[in-house]
Amino acid sequence: MKSCGVVVEYNPLHNGHVYHLKKARELSGADTIIAIMSGNFLQRGEPAIVDKWSRAQMALSAGADLVIELPVAFSTQPADYFAKGAVGLLHAMNCDAICFGSESGESADYQKLAHFLKQHTPTINQRFKENRDPGKTYASQMDQILKELMPEQLVSLSTPNNILGLAYSKENVLYEKPMELYTITRVGSDYHEKELDEQNFSSATAIRESLVGSKKNKARIEELKLSMPDSSFEQLTTHPLVSWENYWPYLKYQIEVQSLEELRTVYQVTEGIEYRLKEYIQEAESFEQFISLVKNKRVSWTRLQRLCVYILLQLKKEDMVNELTEPQAIHLLGFNFRGRNYLKEMKKRFSLPLIANVTKKNKNLWTSDIKAGKIYQMGQLGLIKEQDYYRQPLK
Amino acid sequence: MKSCGVVVEYNPLHNGHVYHLKKARELSGADTIIAIMSGNFLQRGEPAIVDKWSRAQMALSAGADLVIELPVAFSTQPADYFAKGAVGLLHAMNCDAICFGSESGESADYQKLAHFLKQHTPTINQRFKENRDPGKTYASQMDQILKELMPEQLVSLSTPNNILGLAYSKENVLYEKPMELYTITRVGSDYHEKELDEQNFSSATAIRESLVGSKKNKARIEELKLSMPDSSFEQLTTHPLVSWENYWPYLKYQIEVQSLEELRTVYQVTEGIEYRLKEYIQEAESFEQFISLVKNKRVSWTRLQRLCVYILLQLKKEDMVNELTEPQAIHLLGFNFRGRNYLKEMKKRFSLPLIANVTKKNKNLWTSDIKAGKIYQMGQLGLIKEQDYYRQPLK
Repeated sequence: MKSCGVVVEYNPLHNGHVYHLKKARELSGADTIIAIMSGNFLQRGEPAIVDKWSRAQMALSAGADLVIELPVAFSTQPADYFAKGAVGLLHAMNCDAICFGSESGESADYQKLAHFLKQHTPTINQRFKENRDPGKTYASQMDQILKELMPEQLVSLSTPNNILGLAYSKENVLYEKPMELYTITRVGSDYHEKELDEQNFSSATAIRESLVGSKKNKARIEELKLSMPDSSFEQLTTHPLVSWENYWPYLKYQIEVQSLEELRTVYQVTEGIEYRLKEYIQEAESFEQFISLVKNKRVSWTRLQRLCVYILLQLKKEDMVNELTEPQAIHLLGFNFRGRNYLKEMKKRFSLPLIANVTKKNKNLWTSDIKAGKIYQMGQLGLIKEQDYYRQPLK
Repeated sequence: MKSCGVVVEYNPLHNGHVYHLKKARELSGADTIIAIMSGNFLQRGEPAIVDKWSRAQMALSAGADLVIELPVAFSTQPADYFAKGAVGLLHAMNCDAICFGSESGESADYQKLAHFLKQHTPTINQRFKENRDPGKTYASQMDQILKELMPEQLVSLSTPNNILGLAYSKENVLYEKPMELYTITRVGSDYHEKELDEQNFSSATAIRESLVGSKKNKARIEELKLSMPDSSFEQLTTHPLVSWENYWPYLKYQIEVQSLEELRTVYQVTEGIEYRLKEYIQEAESFEQFISLVKNKRVSWTRLQRLCVYILLQLKKEDMVNELTEPQAIHLLGFNFRGRNYLKEMKKRFSLPLIANVTKKNKNLWTSDIKAGKIYQMGQLGLIKEQDYYRQPLK
């Protein structure tokens, strides 16, 4: 019984993702595909357009066998912590392989590079310290250092997918028994795929823009049918949709009501950013305007969005230290018959507790995520269902 | 130059208040009437229907010469602290007299009772400890103790106005040079007043109910003209109106996002009330429903509303200890020519700093109130003006 993991957000799930799931099964030859999926708050520091249950349903309909939630402490992070959480869950579930999208570079390249990085960690950290440049992103600094250290450039770090892929690979080689790696070159590898891409592989970003926010376009919604499975389209048209703007009043309120000192207890509120938050909060009339006011050369749009999630959810520095050591539990959002067989067979060997439904008994393993769910619900007051307590996994 | 203080909320100012101002001037013979007015959050634990500037304008139009803001730490309190703040401000301004409404009881009775209470503080505190009954209000327990200790009952403590009147009187006798006391029997003392009462003395509560909340009644708004001065009517019809329901989403969000431990840092969150708050916050669909769910025999509606203000504004236990020692400043909201003369003459003898407008320089004297203003503004996002920074007093 072979298993292969994919790490996903499905915001929302579109044809590109269906292709990814299909390819993961083909390449790895796995019986069971385990999707580790971000919950209600995502890697770029945004609320998901529909809740984790809708997105888990999309995942099951599109070919995943098990859908497991990536805790919010990991899901709202740059590549390294995001990968630590996801790979940690896959290892805790005895997963055999991981398959990820890559703009360029084969799995062997990632493997090799991950080993190289593991062996040279002290040297790389030293270089980072010496050349620290707050004007450049972590990835571009790493790219520079690698170019200096390695004669052949195995994986370019100029695209988000490659950065994530490398982060999974790096995390993976830290385990005694690493998973096999598989990569899927995302677009344009042959004519067929290119055609699909142009016709039906709309990006998740483009899809969201048609559905929510200032660029919302009702006329385009019917067109979206072409770029995603029917199940995704159904979820999107029958559930409340949200964007950051739905949480803007709460964020604004929280930044207004907290003192500078209180803001500093929030995770990642460092280097005086709290002064800029306070400075611009009053005049900003939307989330987007707020971020564009606070943004400067030292801090990227994405980092600011993540910071706003930490403030909105009041994730504190002291709590995150603990939560980021490893995931506390395997929260099951959904499964099909193959997923059920996998659980039956393997559950006893899981190295973390499996939560099939959140109850008063196990809630201590899921504190920040329960909170994230409660706040997510407030984006459409009264319309979004309870996210955790007593919810049954989808079948 | 004689001055007389009145302690008011004007939520909103109606004909009864005009009568009070007129009588205060007559009885005391004062040249200057100083109104100490609650800011944007009031004694019963509610946001004011219109902001403090609108209400200060009503006050000036109705006959007050100076309008001074009672800081939020004092304005959202039971009688004792409310009186401590208000009487403290009047003493700091060298005020000669105070005039308050009384259901029954003459000023001499209050005077006598206040002295009696001052002399017998230890005995009374002892009795309180011995007979502590959480099922009864503070006032009814005090009433009981007084009945036991005093042969003649000077002031009945069965009405809010008498309780406040006594609190002013008690606070006043703690000063070396107490103010003169004047009382106004509020209603029905002769035919004329009774008639006025029935025709044009609608209570502030009835007026608010016609304007905001679930009992809102547009048809009645024109009728309101009869029960208040034109200036009040104009303020109410040209400014954004709010009630607790406008702040309900923020309160709900804050109670959801804070842990029990964090809630316990808030002023007056004691005796396990935080568990009840957490228990009912999810199901409640309105502020009113929330309070009725949380309410039980041990805690009154008003106490709960105040608690919700403390949570909404995140007034912490440790901050309130300092703020409640005495008001930090005399914040001037408005004045007329008599008020200006008074300031010119007396300012040098004020024992607290006078803030004519809040700036970066003096903001440290006004921290909680600036915060209260920012949160008050959020009740009608974008419609309510900045409440403190660089606002000029009304003239």
